[in-house]
Amino acid sequence: MSETNNLRVDGRKNDQLRDVKISRQYTKYAEGSVLIETGDTKVICTASVEESVPPFLRGQNTGWLTAEYSLLPRSTHSRTIREVARGRLSGRTQEIQRLIGRSLRAVVDLGKLGERTIWVDCDVIQADGGTRTASITGAYVALVDAINYLIEEGVLEESPLNSFMAATSVGVVDGEMLLDLCYEEDFQAQVDMNIVMTEDGRVIEIQGTAEKFPFSRDQMNTLMDLAEKGIRELVSFQKKSLGIEE
Amino acid sequence: MSETNNLRVDGRKNDQLRDVKISRQYTKYAEGSVLIETGDTKVICTASVEESVPPFLRGQNTGWLTAEYSLLPRSTHSRTIREVARGRLSGRTQEIQRLIGRSLRAVVDLGKLGERTIWVDCDVIQADGGTRTASITGAYVALVDAINYLIEEGVLEESPLNSFMAATSVGVVDGEMLLDLCYEEDFQAQVDMNIVMTEDGRVIEIQGTAEKFPFSRDQMNTLMDLAEKGIRELVSFQKKSLGIEE
Amino acid sequence: MSETNNLRVDGRKNDQLRDVKISRQYTKYAEGSVLIETGDTKVICTASVEESVPPFLRGQNTGWLTAEYSLLPRSTHSRTIREVARGRLSGRTQEIQRLIGRSLRAVVDLGKLGERTIWVDCDVIQADGGTRTASITGAYVALVDAINYLIEEGVLEESPLNSFMAATSVGVVDGEMLLDLCYEEDFQAQVDMNIVMTEDGRVIEIQGTAEKFPFSRDQMNTLMDLAEKGIRELVSFQKKSLGIEE
Amino acid sequence: MSETNNLRVDGRKNDQLRDVKISRQYTKYAEGSVLIETGDTKVICTASVEESVPPFLRGQNTGWLTAEYSLLPRSTHSRTIREVARGRLSGRTQEIQRLIGRSLRAVVDLGKLGERTIWVDCDVIQADGGTRTASITGAYVALVDAINYLIEEGVLEESPLNSFMAATSVGVVDGEMLLDLCYEEDFQAQVDMNIVMTEDGRVIEIQGTAEKFPFSRDQMNTLMDLAEKGIRELVSFQKKSLGIEE
Amino acid sequence: MSETNNLRVDGRKNDQLRDVKISRQYTKYAEGSVLIETGDTKVICTASVEESVPPFLRGQNTGWLTAEYSLLPRSTHSRTIREVARGRLSGRTQEIQRLIGRSLRAVVDLGKLGERTIWVDCDVIQADGGTRTASITGAYVALVDAINYLIEEGVLEESPLNSFMAATSVGVVDGEMLLDLCYEEDFQAQVDMNIVMTEDGRVIEIQGTAEKFPFSRDQMNTLMDLAEKGIRELVSFQKKSLGIEE
Amino acid sequence: MSETNNLRVDGRKNDQLRDVKISRQYTKYAEGSVLIETGDTKVICTASVEESVPPFLRGQNTGWLTAEYSLLPRSTHSRTIREVARGRLSGRTQEIQRLIGRSLRAVVDLGKLGERTIWVDCDVIQADGGTRTASITGAYVALVDAINYLIEEGVLEESPLNSFMAATSVGVVDGEMLLDLCYEEDFQAQVDMNIVMTEDGRVIEIQGTAEKFPFSRDQMNTLMDLAEKGIRELVSFQKKSLGIEE
Repeated sequence: MSETNNLRVDGRKNDQLRDVKISRQYTKYAEGSVLIETGDTKVICTASVEESVPPFLRGQNTGWLTAEYSLLPRSTHSRTIREVARGRLSGRTQEIQRLIGRSLRAVVDLGKLGERTIWVDCDVIQADGGTRTASITGAYVALVDAINYLIEEGVLEESPLNSFMAATSVGVVDGEMLLDLCYEEDFQAQVDMNIVMTEDGRVIEIQGTAEKFPFSRDQMNTLMDLAEKGIRELVSFQKKSLGIEE
Repeated sequence: MSETNNLRVDGRKNDQLRDVKISRQYTKYAEGSVLIETGDTKVICTASVEESVPPFLRGQNTGWLTAEYSLLPRSTHSRTIREVARGRLSGRTQEIQRLIGRSLRAVVDLGKLGERTIWVDCDVIQADGGTRTASITGAYVALVDAINYLIEEGVLEESPLNSFMAATSVGVVDGEMLLDLCYEEDFQAQVDMNIVMTEDGRVIEIQGTAEKFPFSRDQMNTLMDLAEKGIRELVSFQKKSLGIEE
Repeated sequence: MSETNNLRVDGRKNDQLRDVKISRQYTKYAEGSVLIETGDTKVICTASVEESVPPFLRGQNTGWLTAEYSLLPRSTHSRTIREVARGRLSGRTQEIQRLIGRSLRAVVDLGKLGERTIWVDCDVIQADGGTRTASITGAYVALVDAINYLIEEGVLEESPLNSFMAATSVGVVDGEMLLDLCYEEDFQAQVDMNIVMTEDGRVIEIQGTAEKFPFSRDQMNTLMDLAEKGIRELVSFQKKSLGIEE
Repeated sequence: MSETNNLRVDGRKNDQLRDVKISRQYTKYAEGSVLIETGDTKVICTASVEESVPPFLRGQNTGWLTAEYSLLPRSTHSRTIREVARGRLSGRTQEIQRLIGRSLRAVVDLGKLGERTIWVDCDVIQADGGTRTASITGAYVALVDAINYLIEEGVLEESPLNSFMAATSVGVVDGEMLLDLCYEEDFQAQVDMNIVMTEDGRVIEIQGTAEKFPFSRDQMNTLMDLAEKGIRELVSFQKKSLGIEE
Repeated sequence: MSETNNLRVDGRKNDQLRDVKISRQYTKYAEGSVLIETGDTKVICTASVEESVPPFLRGQNTGWLTAEYSLLPRSTHSRTIREVARGRLSGRTQEIQRLIGRSLRAVVDLGKLGERTIWVDCDVIQADGGTRTASITGAYVALVDAINYLIEEGVLEESPLNSFMAATSVGVVDGEMLLDLCYEEDFQAQVDMNIVMTEDGRVIEIQGTAEKFPFSRDQMNTLMDLAEKGIRELVSFQKKSLGIEE
Repeated sequence: MSETNNLRVDGRKNDQLRDVKISRQYTKYAEGSVLIETGDTKVICTASVEESVPPFLRGQNTGWLTAEYSLLPRSTHSRTIREVARGRLSGRTQEIQRLIGRSLRAVVDLGKLGERTIWVDCDVIQADGGTRTASITGAYVALVDAINYLIEEGVLEESPLNSFMAATSVGVVDGEMLLDLCYEEDFQAQVDMNIVMTEDGRVIEIQGTAEKFPFSRDQMNTLMDLAEKGIRELVSFQKKSLGIEE
């Protein structure tokens, strides 16, 4: 980890997460409903249970989980046009919601879920970088609540979840390797990487992009170390909010 | 006002509003940003300033104000499909956002606003009836904050707002005339009316619909009285949240 | 009623309707087909019977009625772009067709209609103000014809219609309260109100909008009186065209 | 011409057109506005002048003419869904409106029109076969009226039209070669051909389709003869409606 | 045939086709897959078998054949925008794919095909005029291969094809009547005609358009003669590629 | 590298690429046009120069490069529906074309390109796994040709390209780590990773996904080694096809 001084715009150390706050039961209808705040990034994550599966899975005795993601128009510095006004999802939104869904499915045994769908909705009410990773981290807690609801209702006998997981971003800014980029850092990053991991450090997703400066294998390893540290901490926050002792 | 006993599902009197809470500066980027709660209905209302006007107004030395409205998918009892997934706004959404924009424009002197647009966004995070009227009441406060911001910045010399205003619903349920319907009441209403008024009781918008039972002129007058009472109270809440003494 | 002189652009008194002409059997395929002319506003209204209901009503032993509205491109002063060219309905069109459908359903006992749908189509071939209210007034006659057809064919035993109804506009122009606004009046109106009533003066729909000048409760009452007078006359025209003696 | 007896469903001879009626000044705003009736097929054709050209023609000192076509929902036996409800034009509609526009442009000297566009709208209010050819025949008259309007207004000095023209259909039904097919004939036709010609018998467009039975060159020639006869008669009707003596 | 000298841009005689090359089994998954080259025009034509029919044909013991057509973006001189980027098919594309499907269906006995659909896809990888006629000529060979596959697999007992067929273009350029127009000729043509014929010279489709200069019946006959000559030659190429001796 | 026997479905060793063939000048209009074949995967890659930039870059003295990707309908085992038929791009397509564009831009100095856009089109004519990585590898060669064209034409003085680059996939199948997955392997993979690198082994993009089995950091390193080996070989093929000696 680089031994730098207080270079970061918000005074953090290079390997330091922003403050994390997870509020459960944030709205009243969803089976799982979480407000996650990582610094100034705030996302409402809900998990909704629907007693059916999409056509391509019917009759196969398996469940499904899918995710949607959206920015409120003024979650951003300048107002973002609603996607419905263009009539279609942007490529960015599609990538993000596919990432969220795929990452969560990696820790769900869909066969144990039964023929039902869990809809995960991540609606960003304030964006300051890292909205997709905050969405994943918060959505996992909403998912735990929705699963627990199904168990309490006697719908499920055991949990189909097989690991805790969380996500964060890492990147290279002015040659420094940083954990959990805020918007200003993200904007200047030469390398930008989003990583989803299980609590024991196995990789679920890695998406790394070099904006102009391709990166070396060594840099990549350092970034992975940073991400692993951050994700272990995020899982602790998840457990604490769920009242689980470690 | 009818002298009934505690018929209402939530124990209110017929002419009683639900609890109102208005939180300003709810998110950090918008010039005006309000969370309004009326009972279990919760709406984020932002007012965003854009330094241009739509093509049809260019060069006419006048401003514009437009509104958009959306339900978060799990703001409702069962999950509502995002409109972008259908590729177009529903008729209901279009009606509501046209109503919000038209109502607010009625109290803004657009000529005094200069060649700029105010975007009002109303995003419902929890819906329990009366989302469109809560949106108008909350959006007016966000609008005041955005106008004050423009005055403080020296962009505007005087406020283009010429009256306080608010909105509420009234209706007939089981023959009873009620103020501020919650979802369960709204669902059963024989008559459903949304009214937008200035603080001195003049009508900006009235939209009344008979679901199966056309209503008499007498009933209509009683409903107008109820609305007027509610709107005066709502304007008091707006002023209190803005720190304005009455 | 105001005692004014010939202020109105077309020489009418303030409380005077434009000339009304209702031509039945206007086209040959529809079960009900009417050309309604109110002054220079001309609308083809058809009522078409379809022997099924939308999915949300299947198996519930009830019928449905829905309406669509469109302007021919050159029904207007300058050519209006077809909505299909934009790929979607405008908010104005959606509002109008929802209004027409809702208003007509208020006088139909859908349970008596059986599991069938009546499609009401209102296509404006010439527009001079009041196209939505002319559509409702004309569509009601087409609906009567379609219902009579079903009775004659032995499909229905009794009529599901429980009242005559019609619609008109009222408004405030230059301080004058006027009945049945033509385009030029509508364009200048400070207040614009569309009212749908049964023949005995009960309100089905009221939609009133203040363009800049919120209106008082007194003004509203006067406008309601004007509308009531006009609607009684319109119902007379409907009955005469149907050969019903009053 | 085949010497058959009264085989045709409506009693016509094989080489006989349906009754034709052309009503000019049908609506009041368009520069040219015609109702054409050919038997039970009825089409409103308007020609609207716009003082600009599409981007690809700007600054080239030439004009443009374009056409749009639509069926009213209940112009047909069973109700046709509006195209805007699907969000896009059908292939059939696109073909027809391209045909109408191309055919009319063939007799207009666009250079003489100046930098303006003529929008031709053909809205079918009752369809009984041959709607596209009736549209062309009627639209030509509306176009003459719009051009004459421009000449009377002093906008144009001379007419850019260089020939009368009209269109009809021919086809093979049960081995008989028929002129001007009504819907029932069209439905059964083995060969279906639409032909647009100038008044002196030159071909502007020919579109022939064999539904299952490819046709010989001899049959094609006979069909062309029939079409030529019909089109000469249609041009006479056009001239008569325009008060032009032949 | 006109006795002209080497007027044509590529040195051909007026009644001469461009070089034709038909490559079968061009890609490995489709039941029929052909690359057809006519001069510099190159089209991949595939025929795909699907074991179902569209809803309007279900249970009627008949098959279906439908066609789609597309240009690769840089098949053209300057890059053509993908149609998906506009969200809808152009009128030109719809016309072409309807023409291809209709033409091929004219030689298929759909009843003999059984309840299955053949999808014909024509993707132009290089365009130098005549892409729609090359598509039809090539698609017919792909269709023969797909049918033979179904016979070899024992799915069909006999071929539902009842004739060879092919298509070409003819036109008038600088007063010369030409067979098989390349792009440069097509661009300058006064008359442009696409003709689809069976191998014995019967007409399946004729689509002729006068760009500014309506053409006489005599010209039309000469053009038909040219097309007939070309189509007989194209059928020979088809047979040769299929290893069928004439 | 794992020392396995001929486990792979096509007889390759674990660290062996499929046969690669790169054909330049594949079509005649594009400034760069390549057919790349990697095993049975075949993609036409073109690079087209347009003398303008998108609005967000105008006047900034910089160029742009953007990519589009599409599957021909029968490039796949069973026919894939065209995206235009759904009216919008799938999430998968958007992800792929964003990846291609971003990867190529990482090696282009856009400032040196001048105010012009390079459109990269990757159209898959046969798909057997690895279509996105083959697209990138092939598109790079088309890009080199387009840049060389601009230099030869005197439009550019020096190349804005700063490194060779290529892409491949790696994955874990039945516990084996494999280079360059074909469709059958990709379908069964527990881990699937696409990697884009410069010729000297720096990472431009990494996208790794665990389908059910999150992977360890060790596995990830081995996969990176495999990818690096493959990409060096692919760059050799690119250079050979361009006639560049190493």
